[in-house]
Amino acid sequence: MREEFRSELAIISRSLVNMSEVVCGAMRRATSALLAADQTDAEEALATDAEVDAYYRIIEDRVYDVMARQAPVASDLRLVITTLHMAADLERMGALAAHIARSALRRHPAVAVAEPVASIFKEMGVVAEGLGVKITKAMSARDIVAAAQLDRDDDAMDDLHSKLFSVMFGSDWSAGVEAAVDAALLGRYFERYADHAVNVGKHVVFLVTGESQTD
Amino acid sequence: MREEFRSELAIISRSLVNMSEVVCGAMRRATSALLAADQTDAEEALATDAEVDAYYRIIEDRVYDVMARQAPVASDLRLVITTLHMAADLERMGALAAHIARSALRRHPAVAVAEPVASIFKEMGVVAEGLGVKITKAMSARDIVAAAQLDRDDDAMDDLHSKLFSVMFGSDWSAGVEAAVDAALLGRYFERYADHAVNVGKHVVFLVTGESQTD
Repeated sequence: MREEFRSELAIISRSLVNMSEVVCGAMRRATSALLAADQTDAEEALATDAEVDAYYRIIEDRVYDVMARQAPVASDLRLVITTLHMAADLERMGALAAHIARSALRRHPAVAVAEPVASIFKEMGVVAEGLGVKITKAMSARDIVAAAQLDRDDDAMDDLHSKLFSVMFGSDWSAGVEAAVDAALLGRYFERYADHAVNVGKHVVFLVTGESQTD
Repeated sequence: MREEFRSELAIISRSLVNMSEVVCGAMRRATSALLAADQTDAEEALATDAEVDAYYRIIEDRVYDVMARQAPVASDLRLVITTLHMAADLERMGALAAHIARSALRRHPAVAVAEPVASIFKEMGVVAEGLGVKITKAMSARDIVAAAQLDRDDDAMDDLHSKLFSVMFGSDWSAGVEAAVDAALLGRYFERYADHAVNVGKHVVFLVTGESQTD
């Protein structure tokens, strides 16, 4: 029974890795759509969101199925529910990538990010990409070192977020109110993306070590 | 067994009702802090967030406990996991109320909302309050009529959100970039609060009817 449960959990974990790869691809395209006003990238990122939702439902169904058939208790139960939390975090990350893609489309053919903050969003995109690669690696290799590094990336995202606000609130901001509002909301999407990635990382640590990471 | 399971589920539901009341109180205080620059209200809303988190953990522990002891299958399993999703939505609603309270504190003793959008936020607060009352009632009375009304409130919130943007992006906006950025982020917090409340409503419908509400 226990071995069967382990193997079911491994199947769910593989689906999570696939889901994570899809989410990372969506975020990559959304960021590129944002920085280059690329309509194709934006539309592909949006189309991917449906795929992400489908992954969530598949994983959820499988989790219910495993619980119903194996009736795991104690730590096994926590393990399998942890995978459900991971799927929920990945689903939100996909939704945030879609929000970014929608912002890019809304201003198309103009670039949605004002010139004075474009470099900040470029860096945010790099950090988001790094987070995505690390959580995917952490999940696929059960690698808790990569998971621990996520906090540093999250700090980098927070720093970029603060920098964004100081540029927008600086006396030489001339891009106007609309560009500032766009930037503030986009900044929030990137920041939330990072938060959810860190959550995924904590869940990986729990899956691997059985020890939960307190905030 | 089944009767015992039902009674365990009823206990979890009561905790959810209590948690919802605490969240609603936090949102009420956060909104009042925002509109009146009331430091005490803001600090109380922030203090409540820890209580909301504690409720989440209590409900999570109880859900694990019920699953471990009763090993529910099929629809019962979905019911008990639905309560976990509800707790997660309520937890996010509490966190959003805390974000609003923090925005109020950040600008204290000034009022964080610019005069031209103050009436919109007042209305958003009223809609948020209505949503909170309705989900609490829906949960405590297993009242799916109240749950169905949530969609209308959510539409009202979306309309206010659009109105907020048209005021900010209007040619006569003179409150400046910082006030617009504050308003955009606050608008997003209220909007997400409403989204999570609608989710809670859908979960209530599922708990009562056993039928899930598709988006």
